[in-house]
Amino acid sequence: MPRLAFLIEYHGKKISGSQFQLGVRTVQAELEAACKTLGRKEMRVHLSGRTDAGVHASGQVGHVDWPDTGEKDLDLWRMAWALNGILKSDISIVDMQLVDETFHARYRATSREYVYRFLNRAQRSVFLKDTHYLVHYPLDVEAMQDGASRLLGRHDFSSFRSTGTSQSSPICTVTRSELLQLGDGRLEFWIAADHFVYNMVRIIAGTLTEIGLGKRTPDSVENALEKSDRDLAGPTAPPWGLTLYSVSYPQNYNLFERDPSQRRLKEFSREDL
Amino acid sequence: MPRLAFLIEYHGKKISGSQFQLGVRTVQAELEAACKTLGRKEMRVHLSGRTDAGVHASGQVGHVDWPDTGEKDLDLWRMAWALNGILKSDISIVDMQLVDETFHARYRATSREYVYRFLNRAQRSVFLKDTHYLVHYPLDVEAMQDGASRLLGRHDFSSFRSTGTSQSSPICTVTRSELLQLGDGRLEFWIAADHFVYNMVRIIAGTLTEIGLGKRTPDSVENALEKSDRDLAGPTAPPWGLTLYSVSYPQNYNLFERDPSQRRLKEFSREDL
Repeated sequence: MPRLAFLIEYHGKKISGSQFQLGVRTVQAELEAACKTLGRKEMRVHLSGRTDAGVHASGQVGHVDWPDTGEKDLDLWRMAWALNGILKSDISIVDMQLVDETFHARYRATSREYVYRFLNRAQRSVFLKDTHYLVHYPLDVEAMQDGASRLLGRHDFSSFRSTGTSQSSPICTVTRSELLQLGDGRLEFWIAADHFVYNMVRIIAGTLTEIGLGKRTPDSVENALEKSDRDLAGPTAPPWGLTLYSVSYPQNYNLFERDPSQRRLKEFSREDL
Repeated sequence: MPRLAFLIEYHGKKISGSQFQLGVRTVQAELEAACKTLGRKEMRVHLSGRTDAGVHASGQVGHVDWPDTGEKDLDLWRMAWALNGILKSDISIVDMQLVDETFHARYRATSREYVYRFLNRAQRSVFLKDTHYLVHYPLDVEAMQDGASRLLGRHDFSSFRSTGTSQSSPICTVTRSELLQLGDGRLEFWIAADHFVYNMVRIIAGTLTEIGLGKRTPDSVENALEKSDRDLAGPTAPPWGLTLYSVSYPQNYNLFERDPSQRRLKEFSREDL
């Protein structure tokens, strides 16, 4: 059975998270249903990790073992078109690739990168309202940048984890933690780490918001990291500001170039025109 | 009666154009209804110009004569908040300003700038699908840039006007006509002119698309400009790629700074926190 990796985008507004849950729309269930329609067999789709209800992804990675069809070569490019024809418009398979059986979307992932987007202006934006967290009060961007920089390195993130969740290790190594100031009041907080604990990026985003509002100091981040106490971090920022940007795998898999313009477009003959 | 200018954003997906039409949602009708709710009188809202059904705006300008309330000073900032509270989330009043009675959103406009956005990649994007025209076939960006540059200057745009429309002058002076290549297959065509004829930007976008696909040459643009024949230009590109970006007025009105981050944010006291 050939193992196929997917590069997946989704808009979280009408999606109740990534992982299968009875009775609601999830990325996993939608992908499994589309695969079943196309491949005429039940399949299990594995994703790199869970995202919460309302969270977006521009670079989620999944894999599936596709049933043997007897055909010599699977035309992955046509399969992506067919699957997108089945999926609703808020989930898109951007690329597909054949991988060997050692690949696993979750267990082979070496790091993940998220972006949390803020809009700091008075009135709502009709274009950014579903992907940016609107903050009406003035934010001190330099203080937020200072706070963000203190997350770099290997720390215990127990203070930045929602309580009552799974017992994975709270120790994460953060390789990027950076707040960018774009034009028109837009801010982007970028964070990359080997792994993340539950709600970590949204709790960090809520903490940075409080720093920007002057409700706490940048060095309160270090205090929270040291003390392992959820009450020392800020509130959980809303899900619609968060996007899973990319997932990394060992080089030998050569998985997915990031620039979609490098991907194969439709070929046409003069007769198509 | 104080005259108020509005800076307006709207997302065109669920809007049947800017100008009042019986029985459908239009920007003008929504704004007039909101003004009536807040000001308790019928008011006429004037916009800088019409946009078609499905077209977006990030910098539409309008004005209204607000009924005298007897109050000494109108608090425009609170009024914008109140109006946005009444309007649905796909229309937003970004800024308001008091103007003198010589101002008129339509007749005082000196130029308008539009952006038409393309996405040139194989599979649809869940984030850009409502604001970008997806072209699956490879586009020759240099040829499109060449074609765009030939629109600069003063020309008769009869070939780039939908037939059966109003008899305004087809002579337009184009001061910017530029195709930008952004990352990830995104292209933006920017055009500014003193005025535009009906469907002009969408017909130019359709013509540039044909140039990008190799169906016509860049110099066919010049031929179309010279001959005044609609059949010599390309098809009308879809409305959702088009955004009215800004409208310019004489300097003496000091109308609206473009950077929203310069606009007044909410002020808060320690008690708000």
